[in-house]
Order: sequence, then C-alpha cells, then structure tokens
Amino acid sequence: MGEYPELEAKGKKARDAAIGLATLSAKTKNEALTAMASALETTMEPVLKANAEDVRAARDRGTSEALIDRLTLNEKRIRAMADGLREVAALPDPIGEVIEGWQRPNGLLIEKTRVPLGVIGIIYESRPNVTVDAAGLCLKAGNATLLRGGSEAIRSNLALTEVIAEAACGAGVPDGAIQLVETTDREAAVAMMKMNRYLDVLIPRGGAGLIRTVVQTATVPVIETGVGNCHTFVDASADLKMAEEIAFNAKVQRCSVCNAMETLLVHASVAGAFLPSMIARYRQAGVEIRGCPKTRAIAPGAKEATEEDWHTEYLALILAVKVVGGLEEAISHINRYGSKHSECIVTASYDNARKFTRGVDAAAVYVNASTRFTDGGEFGLGAEIGISTQKLHARGPMGLRELTSIKFVITGDGQIRG
Amino acid sequence: MGEYPELEAKGKKARDAAIGLATLSAKTKNEALTAMASALETTMEPVLKANAEDVRAARDRGTSEALIDRLTLNEKRIRAMADGLREVAALPDPIGEVIEGWQRPNGLLIEKTRVPLGVIGIIYESRPNVTVDAAGLCLKAGNATLLRGGSEAIRSNLALTEVIAEAACGAGVPDGAIQLVETTDREAAVAMMKMNRYLDVLIPRGGAGLIRTVVQTATVPVIETGVGNCHTFVDASADLKMAEEIAFNAKVQRCSVCNAMETLLVHASVAGAFLPSMIARYRQAGVEIRGCPKTRAIAPGAKEATEEDWHTEYLALILAVKVVGGLEEAISHINRYGSKHSECIVTASYDNARKFTRGVDAAAVYVNASTRFTDGGEFGLGAEIGISTQKLHARGPMGLRELTSIKFVITGDGQIRG
Repeated sequence: MGEYPELEAKGKKARDAAIGLATLSAKTKNEALTAMASALETTMEPVLKANAEDVRAARDRGTSEALIDRLTLNEKRIRAMADGLREVAALPDPIGEVIEGWQRPNGLLIEKTRVPLGVIGIIYESRPNVTVDAAGLCLKAGNATLLRGGSEAIRSNLALTEVIAEAACGAGVPDGAIQLVETTDREAAVAMMKMNRYLDVLIPRGGAGLIRTVVQTATVPVIETGVGNCHTFVDASADLKMAEEIAFNAKVQRCSVCNAMETLLVHASVAGAFLPSMIARYRQAGVEIRGCPKTRAIAPGAKEATEEDWHTEYLALILAVKVVGGLEEAISHINRYGSKHSECIVTASYDNARKFTRGVDAAAVYVNASTRFTDGGEFGLGAEIGISTQKLHARGPMGLRELTSIKFVITGDGQIRG
Repeated sequence: MGEYPELEAKGKKARDAAIGLATLSAKTKNEALTAMASALETTMEPVLKANAEDVRAARDRGTSEALIDRLTLNEKRIRAMADGLREVAALPDPIGEVIEGWQRPNGLLIEKTRVPLGVIGIIYESRPNVTVDAAGLCLKAGNATLLRGGSEAIRSNLALTEVIAEAACGAGVPDGAIQLVETTDREAAVAMMKMNRYLDVLIPRGGAGLIRTVVQTATVPVIETGVGNCHTFVDASADLKMAEEIAFNAKVQRCSVCNAMETLLVHASVAGAFLPSMIARYRQAGVEIRGCPKTRAIAPGAKEATEEDWHTEYLALILAVKVVGGLEEAISHINRYGSKHSECIVTASYDNARKFTRGVDAAAVYVNASTRFTDGGEFGLGAEIGISTQKLHARGPMGLRELTSIKFVITGDGQIRG
C-alpha cells in the first residue's frame, strides 16, 4: 500500500471518520441523506458533463450499446438516485438497538448492541448509481465508505462523490465518510483488497468475474454477492397452471438479474402434460431451450443441454430444462449445480414442500412463488446493498442491518473473576 | 489442491456429510455427543499411548516445558473433554429456529430460519483438546468439521478423532462429519485455506502468528479470533478500592489469556492516590511494570514503556501503565492501540460510563467489571469456539449460534412478480 499514497491517505481518513460516524444521531444522518438528495437534483450539470465524457470515451473504445446504456446518466436517473437516498432516510436507524440483554448470576448486565461495521470498501463496475446507493446505505448504518468504481465511469463517479460528500459534510457528517478511489488501475484495486488496517469489510458488486477476483485476492473480509444459478422444480402434484405462471415469470419477467431462473426441473410424471405448452410459451417469448434427452423428445429442435449448461447462469433468454425422476433427484441436482441463491418448488404436497425447504441449501427457498422475489425491497427490508450468497455474516438480501456489527456492553459494580 | 488428494477426498466427504447433518434431529446429535464422551472415557489407552509418542518426540526436539504441558494428555484431561461434550449435548439446539417471520402485502410468508454453516475448517495449534471441543460444538450446530492440528500433536489428534468420529457414526451421524487432515506440512495447510469449494468458513485457533497467516492466506471466509490487547481505564471519579480489585484481577488472575489486561490507563488526577499501592500490589504478585514518564515518577525503577509496549499483548506478568489527561485521551489511546477485544472503565460518572461504552470500538466494553469475563461460559452462552475480534458475522465470544447461518423460507400460493 506504500505504493499507493492515495489509498493510505483515504483509508486513514475513512477510519478516523468512522469513529465520529458511529455515534452520529439518526437525525443528523437523515438530514445528510436528504441534503445529498437535494444536492444531486440541484447540481446535475457537472455530473451530466462528466458522464458525457465517460460515455464519449466508452464509445471511442467501441463499447457495446448495452454497456453504454448502463453507464449513461440522465436527469431521470439522477432523480431516481435522489429518491433512493430519501427512501433510505425514511428507514429506521439500525444503530444503537439493544438486540438482547440478560443479567448474570453475579449481577453483571450483558447487553448485545448494534454498532456500525466501521469502514466498508465497495468495489463495483460500470453503473454509476452504485456510488450513490452504496454511500447512502453505508452512511445510514453509520459506516464510512471507500468506493472503487471502474475506470470507464471514473469521471461520473468522481462528480457524484463530490456532490454527495460535500452535502453530507455540510449536514454534519465527518469529512472522509464518503470517498472515492481515483486510481483505477488493477494493482490499486488489489492493494485495496488487502487494506486490513483500514477496511472492516469489502463488498464487491458486479459480474461473476469481479466477484471471483475479490474472493480470491482479498485479505479483508468479503461479503460475496450476486451469482444466481436458480432453479424451479415442478413436482408431480403441482397445479400445472400455477407452475407455468411461476416458471414463466422466473425466467422471462427480467432475465438479466441474479434471481431469475436458469434451469427448470420437471417431474417425469407431469413432463408430458406440462412441457409442451410451457415450452411453446417460452419460445413465443424468445427463450432458447436447452434440454435433457427426455425434454428434447417432447420439444423437437431443442439443443442438448451439456454438463456446462447445468452450471451456467445465463442472465439471458436461455433456459436449461431437465426431466427428473422425483423430488430427491431435483434436490440433488440443485445442491450440486446451484449457486445457493434462490430455489423454488411448485407442489401441492405438504411432505414434498417440507422436504424441499429443508433439503435445499440456498439463501432463499420458495414454495409456490417465483424466485424473482429475492430482493430487499420485495422482502420488505427497504433498500438493499446486494444479495449475499455466502453463509457468513449475511445470507440473501442485505439491508441496513446487514451493514452492522455488534458490541457487548457489560455493566457491573466491581465484579471480578474468581 | 490437486496435489493433496487427501484434502480433496476429505473435503468432498465433509460436503456430502453436511447435507445429512443439516437435517439431523437434536436427539440424534445429542446421542452422538454423549456416545463420543463415553467412547473417550472407555478408550483412553490408544489415545494416551499416541499422546506419549507425541510428547516423547517433542522432548527429543527440545520443546519447552510450557509447550510440553499444553501437549500432554492424562486421564483427568480426557475426562474433562468428555464432560465438555456432555455440556454441549445439554445446550439447546440452535438449528431450525425461526428467527423472525412476516407476511408481505402480496400474501408471501417470509421466514428467516437458522441453518448450519455447512463445513467448518478449524486450524489450530498444540492443545489436543481443541480436536474434541471444536468437533463437538460444530456437530451440535449441524456442521461437518475438517480439523487441522499441528504436527507436534498429530498422533494424539488422530487417535482422538478416530475415537470420536467412530462413536458419532455409530450414533447415526453421517460418515465424514468429523475428519482430521493427516498431512501436516505447511503447503497442505495453505491448500486447505483455499478450499472454497468444500469449506464454508475457517476458524483459526492459536497464537497471533497463526491467525495472521490464515487471514493473509485464506480465500475461504475466516473468523478471526483471539488477539487481545485489553485496557482498564481508572477514571477520576473511580472508587479506587474497586478499581484496584478490577485492575489486579484483569492482569493477574490468569495472565496468559486473551481477555487479560495488558495496559492500565489512569486519570492524572488520581494517579498519585491510586498508583503507589496498586503498583506495590502488582510487584508483590511478580508483575513487571513498564510506565510512561509520569508513572515512572511515581514508581521508581519501572522500565520505560515504548511505542511497542502500547501495541503488545504480553500474555505474561508484564503491564504497561500510562497516566492520561482524561476520558478523551483514554478512549483515543484504546481505539489506536487496542485490538478491539475487551476494554474497561472504572468510574462513578454516568456521563463518562456512557461516553466510554459508546466511544470505544471493541467486542466487549465494560463498566466497573474485570475484562476477564469475556468468555462464552461467563456470558452464559455455554461453551465457546473462540472469541471473534472481527466485525463480520460474529463479534466477541462465539457460542453455538455463531456456528450457524440463515435460510429464508418463502411460502406462497402462486405469487409472481409484476
């Protein structure tokens, strides 16, 4: 890190800011979030100008239109960021909660209280809105944020950070609470992943490649987010109309997100009744089918699904389909190939619902509902910083509470250990 | 890992075992723990024989008597392990708890349930009792355990693992739930720290060096345990008799453990009244004092405390002492040099107690009680697997609940996302 004086300086400043942030009142934090929202709406010009330069540079490099779209800001998108900050301001403050407390026989009162994590590093790609969303959520939970976006959005991220950091400071938040790393080369990112002295946790937000790199490289504790190879299993007893609606929604409603379905598993006893109309509907919606031999016998023209297909998160209008012998095979398939994100059974059987929810190892296990609901907002947690697919600390949608840690406060009157 | 077929085979076996373990009834787990305890008591001979060989080899290498003592097993120590397992059996089963649940406006019922972490890797040094303690706690929380002890205790650890794993299997626990890595070279340990495919979490138990290595090397999520550079601050308003009892207990009652005090901070206004008798009592107990200039003026002959002393976890009868100008300086010193483990203020001031507990960033913050209470048993959590000094997942003493993760179970009647 000695080679990156910027990281050293910003890390230290974030650590210092975190001390003040930990005891900031909810009132001050909410005023800051509201001020940040207003500043975004009243200072659009420098942000849009910086973004236009990022977009121009991206076009010059021949970036795809899909990526250009993700990078592009406009008035509507900036207003959406501001609205997001106001929604975070309206959420209850998680800090200071006494989660539980008890008295020991020796009279010690032990209270488990909720405190901020401290300094959170966010490493993300392309979408500049992450700059604002992440900083807002981290601030509400009393954390300092060190942001590190991609080089393609550096001008936009700098402009956004300047606007929100200044507004936060003006509302009484310690200087250094929201900072962006300006050095965007790979080596600086690696150095950031090893800043154990200054960072309490790293949250990567982006594609599978970015997340893998952070997990493999970081020495700072990481919360792994996002990859979703999700399944829907249509059981023998399923209401086939309900199954069709759920399976269609899970694949088609928005196919580019982590909670969309990638593989459909169908009980052999209903494959003949269920698959023909289901596949016809998929095809009408532009979904490419890759099937096991039994599926292909029902759906002529479907490609053969390979071992790789069972492992793949398409994030596209492609669906792998497999006919399975029964519940046990469905559970084994999911536990073997799934990414432990969101998994669904459609069934009318109490026993099978129970076996599935107990036997499938995933962050979210559904009975008779679309996997698309795995989302902080849909779960009623308010805004989310991501969806954890690891088992440590947080699993599933992460709201404000997942951006906190705990502190035991022990009060006595002279107790010593015998 | 391809170079370590043992790790690959045992990792895979542990992963398979974890599936069955997750839905094992509390009754079966408790019967297994009891059977393990009985087996330890009735099969002492091979364990003691293997241990004698470890001890002989350690003596031949010229190992210190302190380390030999930690390595040595005898009937009493084995009985203590067995009793520990019975205590774990008597604790409530954390798995299956519905932590919270709520209904969404669309009728979805969302339940946050407690599930095992999966496969836990434990990397530890010398004391063979960790083999049994860790395996017992992990089993009770429904986890498979992959143990990796030091080469100096390999024969003892193998013998212990054989006894308890066989007893567990006999009681209905899946084969592979408790395994020991037999390869004890460093490279195998490094390979184990990168077994993301098979391990959900790694818990290092041992000295600061071991823990640092695991944090720096592992790609598997780590729970950092143990290092404790703890402070006691004697405030201006403290009951000085109470302060003396607490400060003496925190340093002397057992100095080799992580929750023992390493630095005593004293408010300048009471230093003259407090330190002379306090230091005399420490010296009588064999405690070496290293002081700041003001301390040395009060305690002639005390060594000068260096910058390094403020950073050091002595784990010995050595104490750094500093006279501070007030509460703010005490808090700054602790937040700068402490390891965020256990910190204490002795005070009669409501305001200062409040400022200290809010301002100090540590797992456990005490008012008027010895830091020595930071312990799963003393907190009433039952047995502990260690004391976390990181902020992610668990902080402070880790009991059974800290060896679990969560799963969202969502039940509906055909809900799809609009």
